[in-house]
Amino acid sequence: MTETVISSATKTVVMGFDRPFCVIGERINPTGRKLLAAEMAAGDYSRVEADAMAQVQAGATVLDVNAGIPLADEPKILAEAVELVQSITDVPLSIDSSIVEALERGLEVYKGKALVNSVTGEEERLEVVLPLVKKYGAAVVAISNDETGISEDPDVRFEVAKKIVERAQDFGIPASDVVVDPLVMPIGALGQAGNSVFRLIRRLREELKVNTTCGASNISFGLPNRHALNATFLSMAMGAGMTSAIMNPLHQEEMTGIMGANVLCGVDPDCRHWISKFREPAPEGAAAGNDRRERRRRRA
Amino acid sequence: MTETVISSATKTVVMGFDRPFCVIGERINPTGRKLLAAEMAAGDYSRVEADAMAQVQAGATVLDVNAGIPLADEPKILAEAVELVQSITDVPLSIDSSIVEALERGLEVYKGKALVNSVTGEEERLEVVLPLVKKYGAAVVAISNDETGISEDPDVRFEVAKKIVERAQDFGIPASDVVVDPLVMPIGALGQAGNSVFRLIRRLREELKVNTTCGASNISFGLPNRHALNATFLSMAMGAGMTSAIMNPLHQEEMTGIMGANVLCGVDPDCRHWISKFREPAPEGAAAGNDRRERRRRRA
Repeated sequence: MTETVISSATKTVVMGFDRPFCVIGERINPTGRKLLAAEMAAGDYSRVEADAMAQVQAGATVLDVNAGIPLADEPKILAEAVELVQSITDVPLSIDSSIVEALERGLEVYKGKALVNSVTGEEERLEVVLPLVKKYGAAVVAISNDETGISEDPDVRFEVAKKIVERAQDFGIPASDVVVDPLVMPIGALGQAGNSVFRLIRRLREELKVNTTCGASNISFGLPNRHALNATFLSMAMGAGMTSAIMNPLHQEEMTGIMGANVLCGVDPDCRHWISKFREPAPEGAAAGNDRRERRRRRA
Repeated sequence: MTETVISSATKTVVMGFDRPFCVIGERINPTGRKLLAAEMAAGDYSRVEADAMAQVQAGATVLDVNAGIPLADEPKILAEAVELVQSITDVPLSIDSSIVEALERGLEVYKGKALVNSVTGEEERLEVVLPLVKKYGAAVVAISNDETGISEDPDVRFEVAKKIVERAQDFGIPASDVVVDPLVMPIGALGQAGNSVFRLIRRLREELKVNTTCGASNISFGLPNRHALNATFLSMAMGAGMTSAIMNPLHQEEMTGIMGANVLCGVDPDCRHWISKFREPAPEGAAAGNDRRERRRRRA
């Protein structure tokens, strides 16, 4: 069983085939959020703080932190955001940047074993990101595209993932510390996007034996009722073997789909999480087994 | 590709790996419905009629008809119900009884190629039901239990299904006319019920190459928020290869899960069904592409 262990100073999260699905909260990301971008650029992290708390409250077990703001000092902002989030929550973080210097600054200040998001199969990225991952003893998200782009053929994407895992091993990073993102394409544009990614997830699990993650909401791009389609996608991907996703945990439909799939995959023992989330409140004064005592107390 | 073809006098439904999921409406069944049972026993089929119309309206493409009423003349009532339903809808029917004489009376009056629900792997049942299926050129639901009961081991259930398929072939019934029910157990009692049935569905599809069906709602027995769990189960089962279910099509959550899984399995071309069901109504007067013409008309 492949287990990817990441941690904060005080908390460990294990991603694995026999583990509950790992929800990586995606909200701390200024891309497409002008207000958040302006605030972070000005050193105001109040919204980052609120986003961190809300996502953990909603069930995220890892938080992604991204500070990609055009023309801003991304390495400094990313490091500050990482420190801030670690000071108010105990969940492990995914340090997310396309700028290597920003990744390094984030890793420098990080307490624990981080997830680095991400490396692709492009030669130039492998050469700079993997040494960093090794230096800081982190795990890494491996995106299954390379210099030739993103192949529509899931078997080509499998080969790219395999190459990254092998290169990581050359750098001394075990396969269990590589979490492959098979790349989810919009099904509205590519009708076989679901079948492709399910096939790829299954191969990644059975042949390469790695954990997997993805940006789940991409599947429903351009379609109506996205949350319902995302929820269905997530549960089917879990059925195929996917072990985590980078997603918005504030959406109840998606989280319900994941909780249901945890039950059905046998990783919510005795359906405890499902029952505690959804059981109907007992009628007043009818606490189970306490009826008689309750009546006695009332008479007193 | 295995295709199970069933039909009414005027309409054909094909169940298959590359087809939209086949929803078999389960409502016309007096089990646990006292009022319906009393009415049917008294020859009043108004509720059967209403149930038939509502289920087709909700998206059922096949209707199950059951007349299992204690002490009543089940063969007569089943035949009457079959005739009534065929007179008001054009969907093919699943003729559902544990009494062989009732199955035969239903088949006698049925117009088209019916689905017989069901035969088990019990020797005594195989010997009486399969000749009927052959005589009337029907398809049949094969339930994967036998004299020894229902095994918790999916591989034992696979062997029972295999035996039924082989016996059917001995009677001249092709494997494509056998739809296997792998038997869904309640996950609240058996934590591995999901994994077991997904594994079994996959084997039935890949090795035995048969279509499959199930009583989906059994999975959530005894648990809260059943519709959400059923919906998640249905989509995951479809991901594993299940091609139909006997279910209540009036529940929107389950039907949304199925529609989403149709999209993700690539059997809803261009997401047409999904979009037509869920697209938001255009704002008034903003019919796409007609803006200018619309304005001109208004001025006129």
